[in-house]
Amino acid sequence: MDPVVGIVMGSKSDWPVMRHAALTLEQLGVAHERKVYSAHRTPAQCEAWVGGLEERGFWVLIAAAGGAAHLAGVCAAKTELPVLGVPMESKVQGIDSLLSTVQMPAGIPVGTLAIGKAGAINAALLAAAIVGRGNADVRAAVHAYRVAQTKKVLESGELSLEE
Amino acid sequence: MDPVVGIVMGSKSDWPVMRHAALTLEQLGVAHERKVYSAHRTPAQCEAWVGGLEERGFWVLIAAAGGAAHLAGVCAAKTELPVLGVPMESKVQGIDSLLSTVQMPAGIPVGTLAIGKAGAINAALLAAAIVGRGNADVRAAVHAYRVAQTKKVLESGELSLEE
Amino acid sequence: MDPVVGIVMGSKSDWPVMRHAALTLEQLGVAHERKVYSAHRTPAQCEAWVGGLEERGFWVLIAAAGGAAHLAGVCAAKTELPVLGVPMESKVQGIDSLLSTVQMPAGIPVGTLAIGKAGAINAALLAAAIVGRGNADVRAAVHAYRVAQTKKVLESGELSLEE
Amino acid sequence: MDPVVGIVMGSKSDWPVMRHAALTLEQLGVAHERKVYSAHRTPAQCEAWVGGLEERGFWVLIAAAGGAAHLAGVCAAKTELPVLGVPMESKVQGIDSLLSTVQMPAGIPVGTLAIGKAGAINAALLAAAIVGRGNADVRAAVHAYRVAQTKKVLESGELSLEE
Amino acid sequence: MDPVVGIVMGSKSDWPVMRHAALTLEQLGVAHERKVYSAHRTPAQCEAWVGGLEERGFWVLIAAAGGAAHLAGVCAAKTELPVLGVPMESKVQGIDSLLSTVQMPAGIPVGTLAIGKAGAINAALLAAAIVGRGNADVRAAVHAYRVAQTKKVLESGELSLEE
Amino acid sequence: MDPVVGIVMGSKSDWPVMRHAALTLEQLGVAHERKVYSAHRTPAQCEAWVGGLEERGFWVLIAAAGGAAHLAGVCAAKTELPVLGVPMESKVQGIDSLLSTVQMPAGIPVGTLAIGKAGAINAALLAAAIVGRGNADVRAAVHAYRVAQTKKVLESGELSLEE
Amino acid sequence: MDPVVGIVMGSKSDWPVMRHAALTLEQLGVAHERKVYSAHRTPAQCEAWVGGLEERGFWVLIAAAGGAAHLAGVCAAKTELPVLGVPMESKVQGIDSLLSTVQMPAGIPVGTLAIGKAGAINAALLAAAIVGRGNADVRAAVHAYRVAQTKKVLESGELSLEE
Amino acid sequence: MDPVVGIVMGSKSDWPVMRHAALTLEQLGVAHERKVYSAHRTPAQCEAWVGGLEERGFWVLIAAAGGAAHLAGVCAAKTELPVLGVPMESKVQGIDSLLSTVQMPAGIPVGTLAIGKAGAINAALLAAAIVGRGNADVRAAVHAYRVAQTKKVLESGELSLEE
Repeated sequence: MDPVVGIVMGSKSDWPVMRHAALTLEQLGVAHERKVYSAHRTPAQCEAWVGGLEERGFWVLIAAAGGAAHLAGVCAAKTELPVLGVPMESKVQGIDSLLSTVQMPAGIPVGTLAIGKAGAINAALLAAAIVGRGNADVRAAVHAYRVAQTKKVLESGELSLEE
Repeated sequence: MDPVVGIVMGSKSDWPVMRHAALTLEQLGVAHERKVYSAHRTPAQCEAWVGGLEERGFWVLIAAAGGAAHLAGVCAAKTELPVLGVPMESKVQGIDSLLSTVQMPAGIPVGTLAIGKAGAINAALLAAAIVGRGNADVRAAVHAYRVAQTKKVLESGELSLEE
Repeated sequence: MDPVVGIVMGSKSDWPVMRHAALTLEQLGVAHERKVYSAHRTPAQCEAWVGGLEERGFWVLIAAAGGAAHLAGVCAAKTELPVLGVPMESKVQGIDSLLSTVQMPAGIPVGTLAIGKAGAINAALLAAAIVGRGNADVRAAVHAYRVAQTKKVLESGELSLEE
Repeated sequence: MDPVVGIVMGSKSDWPVMRHAALTLEQLGVAHERKVYSAHRTPAQCEAWVGGLEERGFWVLIAAAGGAAHLAGVCAAKTELPVLGVPMESKVQGIDSLLSTVQMPAGIPVGTLAIGKAGAINAALLAAAIVGRGNADVRAAVHAYRVAQTKKVLESGELSLEE
Repeated sequence: MDPVVGIVMGSKSDWPVMRHAALTLEQLGVAHERKVYSAHRTPAQCEAWVGGLEERGFWVLIAAAGGAAHLAGVCAAKTELPVLGVPMESKVQGIDSLLSTVQMPAGIPVGTLAIGKAGAINAALLAAAIVGRGNADVRAAVHAYRVAQTKKVLESGELSLEE
Repeated sequence: MDPVVGIVMGSKSDWPVMRHAALTLEQLGVAHERKVYSAHRTPAQCEAWVGGLEERGFWVLIAAAGGAAHLAGVCAAKTELPVLGVPMESKVQGIDSLLSTVQMPAGIPVGTLAIGKAGAINAALLAAAIVGRGNADVRAAVHAYRVAQTKKVLESGELSLEE
Repeated sequence: MDPVVGIVMGSKSDWPVMRHAALTLEQLGVAHERKVYSAHRTPAQCEAWVGGLEERGFWVLIAAAGGAAHLAGVCAAKTELPVLGVPMESKVQGIDSLLSTVQMPAGIPVGTLAIGKAGAINAALLAAAIVGRGNADVRAAVHAYRVAQTKKVLESGELSLEE
Repeated sequence: MDPVVGIVMGSKSDWPVMRHAALTLEQLGVAHERKVYSAHRTPAQCEAWVGGLEERGFWVLIAAAGGAAHLAGVCAAKTELPVLGVPMESKVQGIDSLLSTVQMPAGIPVGTLAIGKAGAINAALLAAAIVGRGNADVRAAVHAYRVAQTKKVLESGELSLEE
């Protein structure tokens, strides 16, 4: 399977969080490609890569950044693929990253997930749900993932009053 | 074309905003179905409708709500389709709607768009981008939409110092 | 005494905080039942349990969740018992949990307590105050609790300038 | 029926909002008493009234205030009845009212509802749910209210694309 | 010198911060009295103490509390002395404490200082400035304090690029 | 009576709000002087006036500004009189004005009142409470003001359910 | 004089605010060029224009945008000229615009001014101060502007208690 | 080379952050002078230094402060040089520092950078970009810095799924 999901992050320091997106895609059998490109420090290289994804058969792009998090929006300006944004935690708890990612003007959408690790995992799940529209195996993997997580909550075990 | 995108809103009072999502889908030639279901006041009916969408061949669900905006998350819990959330404006400027929609726990993603009308339009565009992965006509319509909006910005006209 | 208060939390990771609600109810002699059910990952099981509480003679339901904290609202949609919500701490200090719990639309109330441990204890106290309307023993236990805590503040001891 | 719910607000200017709490209680057949007492400008009178409610057979107290909204907390300090708080809108959109009402320290709970009119209506509904534990008529009225509001959402009518 | 400044805090846990107010008053030669009284858990005792301060010759009252910080406002309702409020740090960084202290309605003022230790020190300095209006020694002590702190900033020493 | 309270505001556009401070001082018989001086546009003139207040027998300075509201802090740096700050409403609801006024570093206190008109009135009341320490007439006027406002709340009149 | 300052805004709807930047530059005798380019809708055209400014002899670029305001950052990535950002007002009062503009990562600076009209005027003044380093006429014009505004504050006129 | 950039900070405790501004200027070959002056504790000394910078041939002033961060604004009132502000982290995450620095009224601009270390580095880069308008060596150094940082991002290395 050729890669169908791209993951791009603004800095290598985002990788410990975005690694969870990659791991989740692996678990769901969704081939992906990952890159570190900064919207501000490597705009030309970022644009070149993003601009080629559709032609290469990608279905979804996941972009993660923190602070004045322009990466997802800048990518969305350069591709007509669905773009998902993951706001990284920051000095102001990721509120700047969230608002910079989600408050896009009409015309260029970014589907934004939660701040930090939960958002990284959910970006992968949402990407897989999209890929799954055209791929029964991925659809089945998403279904199995959902069934497993329901089971896990139900098996939470005893809530003991003892500390 | 059978409907492939569902639009659900928590209250009929959301329609003047969400109408822009519907209009955008129309413009892009994406057949859709729209409903008013409250996560809190009509949970059973909402669940029944959402639960049937995948089997009926839908590709994406757009959910809009305000305040403690649970609708998108509650829908996402009942379908494995991609779910997009649109936070409505509220007494605290939609900040409650935004956080209630975007801060989903790992496991159940909601791709969240901007607060209000820009988010409504962008949810439609993102839904069309997803649908476009499997439909060349929609892909072409999205492309034309993007070309047109670029042209419109470039034709902004004179910026006169006269009032 | 059969249980009259239910405690439900969205994740077992909420238990170290919600344990204080359970301990407070124990101290006040209010029998309770506790569960881990996620609004998003186990909606059906949650609904089945909540839907049966009134018939089983419960008086109050306490629901705790964090982030996009839909649990209390989702429970309130499925029962006509009084529902109390406890917002858990989160990546943005529980502000998302608080707004997601308290900003319910007209029609489905959730009585919301403070973020975190103080909220857990107070949910138990408020539940006991409600149960106390129909139970003189609980009323007396609440009264004793209040007298004791007043006494404890008054016995704070010396405020020494030495470090 | 003697009054079982008290409504107190910090200023007569809160009445246009809190009127909706009173109307909702009327509609549910719950007798109530309403007062304007300021936590800061009439503390003695407020305390005298609140302190006597339990003995007079009240079940619930609803307190509404804005800004540095101390009223609900101050009342909760003077009664062992369940106290519900309604944050009024303010210069900073009611965020100050909300935090001042909900962030009570462990020991003195205030069950807080949404900011403004939705909170006023929901305080009445939650009070009625509490009163309903001991009164089958009120319970039935709450049930009827819920059924009616579900029906109303389902009859939202057409969502026309025409403006 | 009889005490002229009162310091009251809502919980003994505020003392490590409010100790800096007491130390500053000591340093300025302003006699003071300090108490732990909770607006919610010991309202009667708090009121009795506050109500007697003016007659006992006090000039200023400093009140410190956190979360839904009602203490300063509740004290201000019970005395016509100048009341200064110090918001304690909290789960939401003291923003709730600040808004609960400062956003008082017209009619009952609380002069509010910064969140935490800086506020504790400044409450003492402001109290001393007030006391100084009627006491030349205190005025002189405040002046000396200001001169000393200016000198200290000017003697900050070298800013070395070495770590 | 020579003026004992100074009122300074950063812009003449603050006067419609600060007028309420002046009117309240008039009502309490406290002579005052008022000025428009900007911390940024007229620093030298502001400094000259503030620096002379103590020698001229003033007891309190009230400073009002909006946005990056530096005026109260800048005045407090130039006098050892008690300084009270009133944050003006702004594009972000006065939150910037509030934080810029209240979050002073240890060493230079500003007693901060509520945002806008309530803060203007309360600054006057707090100034009068301070002046009242040395002036029995002002003390009596403050007392009368408080009695009158209590009476006004108690005479709020009927709370009619009719609109 | 060839243009030395560029003004770019993300949408023609920003012009009524940014017009004040242009007018201020005119008043100071600083030749400028103005454009509407969207970071998302016309990235290529924006980049082409920005990329050529330094070679054309410009000294400063002012960029204004609202919501997820990426324009200033995106421009700063494409030029080594000093870039100044003006956050436009938005649905959440410009807080998203401000954070998206100011919270740039280390490496690509944007000097950010206040939200809205004050920021537009100040961007022009700051640009003129920069241009003034190399141009005595502009320096003199800035000086005259400052002198005039000081005079204007000092001539604020009477603060009448009459309404 | 005589110093052309001034760095002033409100407290020596800001130096560990502002050291990065100084180091960046060193790296770019921009001579600078650094001082600790408090807007509130040493206003006269601060003013004297700032007031002399233009005459001494400085091009830019960088001012850093936290909390009610008045330093940059106060400096901007005393010089016609371009002033850049760096908000320090604070008890409320630097939000107070940011708003106090950036929300300047029309007439006195402060070009504000990000909160904390990123802002310190970027203030130096922006200062160098300004100085570079009149100095080809500095311009070249800025260019080299930008090229190097682009290269560094591109050499981020492998993103391994192994922990």
